[in-house]
Amino acid sequence: MKTRDKIIQASIDLFNEQGERNVTTNHIAAHLGISPGNLYYHFRNKEDIILSIYEEYARNLLLETFPVVSPDVKPLDAIILYMDAVFQAMSKFRFFYANLPVLLAKNPLLREKYVEVQHFISERVGDLLLALRDANMIEFSDDELPDLISILRIVNTFWLSFHQTQNLDSEIDASVFYEGVLKILMIIRPYTTEAALPEFMRAREMYLDRHKEALSGEVVA
Amino acid sequence: MKTRDKIIQASIDLFNEQGERNVTTNHIAAHLGISPGNLYYHFRNKEDIILSIYEEYARNLLLETFPVVSPDVKPLDAIILYMDAVFQAMSKFRFFYANLPVLLAKNPLLREKYVEVQHFISERVGDLLLALRDANMIEFSDDELPDLISILRIVNTFWLSFHQTQNLDSEIDASVFYEGVLKILMIIRPYTTEAALPEFMRAREMYLDRHKEALSGEVVA
Repeated sequence: MKTRDKIIQASIDLFNEQGERNVTTNHIAAHLGISPGNLYYHFRNKEDIILSIYEEYARNLLLETFPVVSPDVKPLDAIILYMDAVFQAMSKFRFFYANLPVLLAKNPLLREKYVEVQHFISERVGDLLLALRDANMIEFSDDELPDLISILRIVNTFWLSFHQTQNLDSEIDASVFYEGVLKILMIIRPYTTEAALPEFMRAREMYLDRHKEALSGEVVA
Repeated sequence: MKTRDKIIQASIDLFNEQGERNVTTNHIAAHLGISPGNLYYHFRNKEDIILSIYEEYARNLLLETFPVVSPDVKPLDAIILYMDAVFQAMSKFRFFYANLPVLLAKNPLLREKYVEVQHFISERVGDLLLALRDANMIEFSDDELPDLISILRIVNTFWLSFHQTQNLDSEIDASVFYEGVLKILMIIRPYTTEAALPEFMRAREMYLDRHKEALSGEVVA
């Protein structure tokens, strides 16, 4: 592994464990047993490391794992794959999402990249909803589409933050993810067509079971 | 104004303007022209100030302005009053909501107070939804109630953060608030009864108009 990649990986771990604001470039260098000078050869400062983490890792995870609408993928599965992609990114880079507005305010270049990805994701979520409508699984009017996209994205993006701030025990495990999927299904539910209701209810049952299993600690997917 | 209150007010202003992490107790003392020793007479450290801000101001704003279900208040108005109460708290204490998970992780006592308020708010939102159902304005099954509460609360709590992180221009004005109310109405919309649809659509039209006016800068309520 190259030094640059080692710095990135150590930074992600330390930021997630100790909170980004409590970790300095000196901590990162000490953790890796390299000199601060060596770290500064690769990155100008901490903001530069965070920008690289987003640009090379979080962004790619989101863009590459984002489900593409195709005849091979059931539209409902695509929605769940999308939820999964976002959730994975949020677990791996949770320091980033825990104080997103603050990090973006500090770093205009990061903000620019982030906003670009956000527009891409909104478009893709729109495509997914339109594919579900084309497949006669959900019904909505064209002027409802932007609000539906926003609501799905707010719940998806901030589900972990919400969960973490509602309970004294803020452990993030598989049950929290399944609970998030169930929220997403609840939002889509009222738009489901009669024809798609059985498939929809099966998906819901499946995630209710997984949630229960994860809570009881029997299965952790 | 007592020194203690002056410290609280100056801290809120400085945290909001410069970001809480960029403001030290020394900055706050210098801003007020008092000695650091004087500040430490009133507060042990910055976490202590943040705890007091939440405990004495944000918490009270949320609890006191929270609409109570009563025969005098139309249930739909109550939902909008609730949105307004949360939005006001979020505007006045935006530094707090901008990195909520981080601040709570640092301060167990704050976390305890916050979680307590969250449970109170969830119960009140549940009361509002049940009042809307009793008034035959919306329909939902009992097992849908917890998810409905969560979805409304996630969108409400994180609407500002979402808006701020979607656009390069993150100005918060009245139009952003009206857009948030419209999102809340969109969530309730599918549950609206036939009988309540006209009143619901009137509320929606009103907020669409206000949103348009606020965007054009004609009226800022």
